[in-house]
Amino acid sequence: MTDKLIIFDTTLRDGEQSPGASMRKEEKIRIARQLERMKVDVIEAGFAASSNGDFDAIQAIASQVKDSAVCSLARANDKDIARAAEALKPAGQFRIHTFIATSMLHMEKKLRMTPKQVYEQARLAVRFARQFTDDIEFSCEDGSRSEIDFLCRVLEVVIAEGATTINIPDTVGYAVPDGYAALIQQIRERVPNSDKAVFSVHCHNDLGMAVANSLAAVKLGGARQIECTVNGLGERAGNTSLEEVVMAVKTRRDYFGLEVGIDTTQILPTSKLVSQTTGFVVQPNKAVVGANAFAHASGIHQDGVLKARDTYEIMRAEDVGWSANKIVLGKLSGRNAFKKRLQELRVVLNSEAELNSAFLRFKELADRKAEIFDEDILSILSQEANAVLDHETYRFVSLSQHSETGERPSAKVVFAIDSSETVGEAHGNGPVDATLHAIESQVNSSAELILYSVNAITTGTQAQGEVTVRLSKAGRIVNGVGTDLDIVAASAKAYIAALNKLNSNTERLNPQCS
Amino acid sequence: MTDKLIIFDTTLRDGEQSPGASMRKEEKIRIARQLERMKVDVIEAGFAASSNGDFDAIQAIASQVKDSAVCSLARANDKDIARAAEALKPAGQFRIHTFIATSMLHMEKKLRMTPKQVYEQARLAVRFARQFTDDIEFSCEDGSRSEIDFLCRVLEVVIAEGATTINIPDTVGYAVPDGYAALIQQIRERVPNSDKAVFSVHCHNDLGMAVANSLAAVKLGGARQIECTVNGLGERAGNTSLEEVVMAVKTRRDYFGLEVGIDTTQILPTSKLVSQTTGFVVQPNKAVVGANAFAHASGIHQDGVLKARDTYEIMRAEDVGWSANKIVLGKLSGRNAFKKRLQELRVVLNSEAELNSAFLRFKELADRKAEIFDEDILSILSQEANAVLDHETYRFVSLSQHSETGERPSAKVVFAIDSSETVGEAHGNGPVDATLHAIESQVNSSAELILYSVNAITTGTQAQGEVTVRLSKAGRIVNGVGTDLDIVAASAKAYIAALNKLNSNTERLNPQCS
Repeated sequence: MTDKLIIFDTTLRDGEQSPGASMRKEEKIRIARQLERMKVDVIEAGFAASSNGDFDAIQAIASQVKDSAVCSLARANDKDIARAAEALKPAGQFRIHTFIATSMLHMEKKLRMTPKQVYEQARLAVRFARQFTDDIEFSCEDGSRSEIDFLCRVLEVVIAEGATTINIPDTVGYAVPDGYAALIQQIRERVPNSDKAVFSVHCHNDLGMAVANSLAAVKLGGARQIECTVNGLGERAGNTSLEEVVMAVKTRRDYFGLEVGIDTTQILPTSKLVSQTTGFVVQPNKAVVGANAFAHASGIHQDGVLKARDTYEIMRAEDVGWSANKIVLGKLSGRNAFKKRLQELRVVLNSEAELNSAFLRFKELADRKAEIFDEDILSILSQEANAVLDHETYRFVSLSQHSETGERPSAKVVFAIDSSETVGEAHGNGPVDATLHAIESQVNSSAELILYSVNAITTGTQAQGEVTVRLSKAGRIVNGVGTDLDIVAASAKAYIAALNKLNSNTERLNPQCS
Repeated sequence: MTDKLIIFDTTLRDGEQSPGASMRKEEKIRIARQLERMKVDVIEAGFAASSNGDFDAIQAIASQVKDSAVCSLARANDKDIARAAEALKPAGQFRIHTFIATSMLHMEKKLRMTPKQVYEQARLAVRFARQFTDDIEFSCEDGSRSEIDFLCRVLEVVIAEGATTINIPDTVGYAVPDGYAALIQQIRERVPNSDKAVFSVHCHNDLGMAVANSLAAVKLGGARQIECTVNGLGERAGNTSLEEVVMAVKTRRDYFGLEVGIDTTQILPTSKLVSQTTGFVVQPNKAVVGANAFAHASGIHQDGVLKARDTYEIMRAEDVGWSANKIVLGKLSGRNAFKKRLQELRVVLNSEAELNSAFLRFKELADRKAEIFDEDILSILSQEANAVLDHETYRFVSLSQHSETGERPSAKVVFAIDSSETVGEAHGNGPVDATLHAIESQVNSSAELILYSVNAITTGTQAQGEVTVRLSKAGRIVNGVGTDLDIVAASAKAYIAALNKLNSNTERLNPQCS
């Protein structure tokens, strides 16, 4: 058995299915390139048949990403598989990931199919996929709750048809480590041709054990691929955290004896990019990427107690990309210094025009903020990426707001609807409430605000505020993120970004596979 | 072997050691009472010898909590143990938890003691503790990295001296489930008198496996106590999450076959109280208590896909205390309605004067906010509890602030220093920056702002904003929390709360035990 552990990232597919985490094509491309930089083995870029937006994003990622294998999800039918293959074609080498549910509960209640029908459909799907690629992954949804005899029969036939990776997901986050590892081990023993495939695990964190379940399946069950997401993003309690799995395998190499290809110094930048893009915050006591995960990175002086770092720290903060915020640029920095810093951050802009536009935003920020950090530059680029999007209905122009104890806060927001400027004025319970009302007075979206949060991008009182708003309308949930030195202005931008997302037409299927 | 799993909560001790999570006596009492309401078996209320503040808080909790055993940490020396016993005396029945490091690394580098000295000190400490109580827990710090022969010798002697609970912590979060379970099992087999003690586990989450490690030790290693914290609060990546462990044991009763005494419907209220008090946010994709943990609780309509709830949900949101936000009171509600709602929330105020004062705050809020939710009432009580504290140096009075695109934001803050009012005015990069500068112009604390975040207390644009600021000064880190409909005012309040905490004299020892 090989000692290489394959890291399969599904931030852009299963992570994105999390309510509010939906991303635009440009955002997905940026994350995919960062995943490639971090050297993940496989990037699941989306689910091509679910929407045209997903198809386009997968196609774009397939054309741009070269060092990681690009993959699309597809239900076990010809149409989905052909669509996945079409989206992936630019990649040359690619993976098709097809799935069908195998538990009695899901077959009966969701698919309304007999086990025999499911068996046949799985077989035909893999056979069909073989004409497009040699790299085929098959997942049996709700695998951890499936009957093992049936599971083994299905897996035997799909391997015979050419599936090269077999994934046994714990779809509902119900498994425990030793039980799950034993299941994988048993399947591998009982399926006669199991040596022809790499076994994979895909866990959900509903009971807080996704990482341990995945690692147990690898160590004790012989799995060699882990499906995971950055920050553990995903529906409900999320998926297995990429950063935790990778650091466990690296830190406990004595125990796991496995190789992972990940460049761990890219973990923190990736984590920040994903949380900034999706608006899903990382709690301070989150392993590896939380603000408190490393004592000395949060500025603590362990007076007296900490006589040697290894008494309490098993990993080094630097190894996962933590470093002190550094002032990198200021008001006097020119276009060349800015361009050079972008190169050092390994950010590639598509044209000189984009660079000019980003540089203008930088100058604007530097006029208002003395010290510019890498985080600020990255936030400029996020805004830039959003600004160049087509079909933006609403665009923030300016804001004036006032609040005073004992009086009713007021706000006036100027913004563009399509290309004509409009002004909204309103009062509210607080300046943010007044600002959102001012926008709503002109938009009348009737969306419901279900989440509002602000985080500072860097430390210090002069930091930019990053606001996330989550809106719900007619069962659709979107997040909008806005950044500004003024958190009320950032709130207006975030709200407008969310309205734009609500406004974009991205109807799609959302199968809760694996 | 018994099938009762003891839940030992250390939110107030190990959780509180997390930088910035320090709590005041009144806050600790409120959390302790909520833990009692949730029916945790043991509440570790603090570390009596570490500071007078800790001593007082333990004493107060020991007098008020009756249904849970109250416990204090103590290093393995007579002075610490006597101090713990003194603080705990009002409880009648109580537990003393004494500890010493047993790994070579910690003995050499931290304690500078030989194994023989450590052995002797452990023995004498437990012997000394026996004169105060029959309920003695002994922890071997860094147990998971200790040499097993030495560990067994130490444990045999402390059990012989009367230790009734033996805790083997994974102090640095280094363990993996099967290895950790095997260690506990081996120790239980090798220590001749191990049947005289309950074995306990205490895990840290640095590699994301604290919950799985704890549960493996219980299922496979025979441990019968889990030490944990609400929301997994704790240093670095935190401790084992109480809510995850409890729900895993309940949900997988088929596998664990264990009883836990916890009233799970109190889990969410407890989680909210702890995050509100400490300012440590819970990420949306956190298991059990995250905003997204239950799909249907976050307002999602699973069109078509979700044909039966159990296809994707293994727990019910109601079982852990999730319910829709309910409008409970409004502008016209009288003092009796308010009092009745407090009783329904099982909140006890100490006097009619406190009730009056809380009611005034409620009326003030109801004048500005049409719909008052339970969360709003709880936040009023938090503010109330803070307001009655003695020795508050700074007190917020009023704020006026303005920002406008293209102009420099300004703020004027009126606040009291001791009892005299002062006015600070300043400009800043944004209204929050201006506000904090306005305060600093009069205070000159030279504290550094290292974290700033805002969360809405309920959904909707009219929600109150809850701001957390974390300040660092001379190696000390404090969190301040402020709540207001106006997030700029909430920021001022949070900053002032943090300044008060910095100003309070709470020098203390912070041993990173277990």
